[in-house]
Amino acid sequence: MKSKILNTGPERTIALVFETGDEVIPLLEEFAKANALSASRFSAIGALRGAVLGYFDWERKDYDRIPVGEQVEVLSLNGDIALDGDQPTVHAHAVLGRRDGSTVGGHVLQATVQPTLEVLLIESPGYLRKTCDRESGLALIDIDA
Amino acid sequence: MKSKILNTGPERTIALVFETGDEVIPLLEEFAKANALSASRFSAIGALRGAVLGYFDWERKDYDRIPVGEQVEVLSLNGDIALDGDQPTVHAHAVLGRRDGSTVGGHVLQATVQPTLEVLLIESPGYLRKTCDRESGLALIDIDA
Amino acid sequence: MKSKILNTGPERTIALVFETGDEVIPLLEEFAKANALSASRFSAIGALRGAVLGYFDWERKDYDRIPVGEQVEVLSLNGDIALDGDQPTVHAHAVLGRRDGSTVGGHVLQATVQPTLEVLLIESPGYLRKTCDRESGLALIDIDA
Repeated sequence: MKSKILNTGPERTIALVFETGDEVIPLLEEFAKANALSASRFSAIGALRGAVLGYFDWERKDYDRIPVGEQVEVLSLNGDIALDGDQPTVHAHAVLGRRDGSTVGGHVLQATVQPTLEVLLIESPGYLRKTCDRESGLALIDIDA
Repeated sequence: MKSKILNTGPERTIALVFETGDEVIPLLEEFAKANALSASRFSAIGALRGAVLGYFDWERKDYDRIPVGEQVEVLSLNGDIALDGDQPTVHAHAVLGRRDGSTVGGHVLQATVQPTLEVLLIESPGYLRKTCDRESGLALIDIDA
Repeated sequence: MKSKILNTGPERTIALVFETGDEVIPLLEEFAKANALSASRFSAIGALRGAVLGYFDWERKDYDRIPVGEQVEVLSLNGDIALDGDQPTVHAHAVLGRRDGSTVGGHVLQATVQPTLEVLLIESPGYLRKTCDRESGLALIDIDA
């Protein structure tokens, strides 16, 4: 485990409210790029009309796709934004709730909002950088980068 | 329920500790009103002796009730507080864990603590306001309001 | 999607990045002791190659053990750090996601990272102290202590 202090001074808290039909990941990345976010975290609740979640398969070194083709509550959606090269990239995991209260979760590959997603995003003045992890092939946050 | 201010600055972090028998939603709303919270977020862990979760039914434009009649761990309980008119309103989603590790989740309609719920609430100096969403009939955060 | 700045402003945010093989709870407690954390909260996403979760059994006044013997996504891992006597102690609850998107969750007794766990920890300048709760036998946060 390695650690890095991301702020000693001010952080900014930004509310992001998504509407019906909004695609969460591309809009978050667009926002991150437009605002040059270099080290942010976020948490959200709301609801989706559909999603594709991922489970990382170590054999294939890629995500299995878990389609969620129904209206679900977003019970938790937590993530961070770090730099991959000079581009902000979004990493988010979610737990979704079905009509009977059962849950399904994974890495968020795709998520379509209905009717709202309320995201509280906290922007730190520091930065986090990703580098390619040789074992998994994934771009992971590298404290020393 | 008791509270303690953990920092003073542009945002305030407040720990709220709930005890056995405390009802989460009315006590949080009471606290929000007493402190005139206009834009807060919170996250909690702990345990409940029972809860009623909700899943929003688009046909009825109301929440289906999912009763949870057993002792459960609060695996996540995330939410926000925004103004509906001039009144702070609490919006919270939870994932609860049963004895065998299986989970149930939804919009928190009712939750009774046992033995503790540890809430970290962050109060922002700004405000968020809700307006009625015509499509769903729900009061949703409206950034422009 | 629309956005609004809610604040500008002071706590310390620390990124902790865990690597393959890292044990989450002892490393977090070591970090908390080395940095004399007296009131912190954290949230994490990532993946584990195994874990032991807990469900508190009121009869035995101890945690049932729920072993998770497979690679899982960390969908949420939320917790806090408070003082038990003069020692920082970690309290964490997690929801983990399996290959098919099904979830398992509980109090985190043990968790082994693979390939990464990205923790955002926020250190407050105040303190939280635990005392023994007579009803449960657990050390719980006591606002008055």
